[in-house]
Amino acid sequence: MTDARTVWQDVERIRAGRPLIHNITNYVVMNLTANALLALGASPVMAQAPEEAAEMAGIAQALVLNIGTLSRPWIESMRLAAAAAKAKKIPIVIDPVGAGATRFRTETALSLIEACRPCIVRGNASEIRALVLAEAATKGVDSRHDSADALEAARALAGFGVVVSVSGPVDLIVGETRLLRVANGHPLMPRVTGLGCAATALTAAFAAVNPSPVQAAAHAMAVMGIAGEMAAEGAAGPASLEVRFIDALYALKEDDIRSRLKVEEA
Amino acid sequence: MTDARTVWQDVERIRAGRPLIHNITNYVVMNLTANALLALGASPVMAQAPEEAAEMAGIAQALVLNIGTLSRPWIESMRLAAAAAKAKKIPIVIDPVGAGATRFRTETALSLIEACRPCIVRGNASEIRALVLAEAATKGVDSRHDSADALEAARALAGFGVVVSVSGPVDLIVGETRLLRVANGHPLMPRVTGLGCAATALTAAFAAVNPSPVQAAAHAMAVMGIAGEMAAEGAAGPASLEVRFIDALYALKEDDIRSRLKVEEA
Amino acid sequence: MTDARTVWQDVERIRAGRPLIHNITNYVVMNLTANALLALGASPVMAQAPEEAAEMAGIAQALVLNIGTLSRPWIESMRLAAAAAKAKKIPIVIDPVGAGATRFRTETALSLIEACRPCIVRGNASEIRALVLAEAATKGVDSRHDSADALEAARALAGFGVVVSVSGPVDLIVGETRLLRVANGHPLMPRVTGLGCAATALTAAFAAVNPSPVQAAAHAMAVMGIAGEMAAEGAAGPASLEVRFIDALYALKEDDIRSRLKVEEA
Repeated sequence: MTDARTVWQDVERIRAGRPLIHNITNYVVMNLTANALLALGASPVMAQAPEEAAEMAGIAQALVLNIGTLSRPWIESMRLAAAAAKAKKIPIVIDPVGAGATRFRTETALSLIEACRPCIVRGNASEIRALVLAEAATKGVDSRHDSADALEAARALAGFGVVVSVSGPVDLIVGETRLLRVANGHPLMPRVTGLGCAATALTAAFAAVNPSPVQAAAHAMAVMGIAGEMAAEGAAGPASLEVRFIDALYALKEDDIRSRLKVEEA
Repeated sequence: MTDARTVWQDVERIRAGRPLIHNITNYVVMNLTANALLALGASPVMAQAPEEAAEMAGIAQALVLNIGTLSRPWIESMRLAAAAAKAKKIPIVIDPVGAGATRFRTETALSLIEACRPCIVRGNASEIRALVLAEAATKGVDSRHDSADALEAARALAGFGVVVSVSGPVDLIVGETRLLRVANGHPLMPRVTGLGCAATALTAAFAAVNPSPVQAAAHAMAVMGIAGEMAAEGAAGPASLEVRFIDALYALKEDDIRSRLKVEEA
Repeated sequence: MTDARTVWQDVERIRAGRPLIHNITNYVVMNLTANALLALGASPVMAQAPEEAAEMAGIAQALVLNIGTLSRPWIESMRLAAAAAKAKKIPIVIDPVGAGATRFRTETALSLIEACRPCIVRGNASEIRALVLAEAATKGVDSRHDSADALEAARALAGFGVVVSVSGPVDLIVGETRLLRVANGHPLMPRVTGLGCAATALTAAFAAVNPSPVQAAAHAMAVMGIAGEMAAEGAAGPASLEVRFIDALYALKEDDIRSRLKVEEA
């Protein structure tokens, strides 16, 4: 079950255990990703060299693979890290940034998901649709769809042992037999580059302390949305929202979750 | 003509159309560049793999090539993206970051300009001088010259079908037959890394909605300068200026342009 | 001697001379590093292509080598830049980010130190211990040790012509015959990604204007810590601390140093 108590329990586990989250992610968001993980209480590391990708994954508690600025050598390192993560049975979270925008992204995302199962996939509705429907995007990395439009695609992916977290005004968490909706968040959040990627990294931090991928994904999206709501109060625009978001993650209290959490299971 | 009405018209076109701006740019500024484009209302994407550079440029409305942390493989991707952009007749904006600091930068910038014409080149005075005068820099990527010192060099480049935007306390926009001066801005802006690169990206966003490269460049520099002036009011230093700059871009109103615009055509 | 007067003298030299600091550093921190150097008054440049690494180091006043997201091609460029820096006799500062986390990092850090002597090494206690004790890390890039735990390791390195700056609640600056302790700083600082890397870059800026590596390292850590203390007053969390830190570096006054400096020589 996902309620304020279980969300808060995971936050406390992250803060106490400081799980090491190994990120092979894109250049645009590395700094924000590291700061979001540090603010929540986790310990981030970025390492993409083939010489160390497996070794780093081997000391981590979760692995993030994000294809936002992908290239052949990094894909190879992602595979090495994923193999080490699977051997160590730590969770793998994949962010198919821009799937649908180019064939290279769609195919890379699909082959990573194929190689990494079981895992959690966190993306926006256009990206999740592209993975299943071979649908081409015209807007690069921003979503053209509402999360509800990706429900069937997410269910199809979930049939292959993947938990799918579709972000949007209402986030959907789709497992093989479960469907959760998280209605926290704020409309200004998509105007900050990398908040989606930060959500992926936080999902990995929650997965490091919670054995249920569905719960980990839901808890991460709830904490993202709640910190975003708190940040939006008093923000003058996207940059002050970003600063306030990180500060809110750091200062998050049980009562913030208790008073704001909007999760329901279908 | 460039006046408050035409500047604002372009801002509204960007906000309504959300043009996709494909950036092959440097590691230092990717995050700020993406946030500046999002705040203005455009849709940024970064993609530098040779496998997808042309395809991404093919769905974009403008292309940015920035050599701030260049390398051979990225130059090759810049060429592929540029060829796709030319085929699709979308505008290309080149930022010759650090031209003059090393031969590699000067030569790469010149060969990209050669391959990409027509295009807009946006740089500081030392960079524009280096392209034409084969002048060596001693200060890396920061300018040692006032924009006026680069007027002749900019005119020489403009003779080859390039519109040149020289940033400085007074920005110069130099076309084959036109010269505009934009006097908006604030002296603290050069203390924020990547604001010049953000100006290049905003130039691409304006070029995506305005068929006149001279106007697009002038409108972008005016909006940069006006947002910078608004941000500087109340900023305690460069980092709070950066936050306030992005917030100001997001909140920009027609009246801000009307009351602050300082553009004149020679 | 290190006192408020000598620290301030170096700050004034940096502001007046604007030394060019060439950074080959990691993707995560490039933006913050550049902004910290600009705020202090130095002129940053990032350049990692083998075609220009030596030429860029040749026009710089100091060189930073940081292995935070290392890869084989970048290590080769670090070697080229280091050779040029040694030929020009400019200071080299090495940041062994994550040494101990993987063999690749430990070995790369050691071989760079071997090749670059004399130099300054700036790292956290776990990294410095890993270089000497071949100790494996379990926490990625965050320190598991107090700086005092790295004193013997630092002394061992210092015996090879290296000045070691160990950051922590109390920073240690260890030369062959000297030991300084800098007690400035704030506990929230390790929650901001890249402040350690910024300390490395500021160390290079101080080394560019002060011929004593021990003094340069101590002055840099003092200024980092003082700006961090000033930033923490009124910060709501790590992101507002980061913004206020850069603003404080920019606005730093002699009296801030005079009233806060906590340096002692053993």
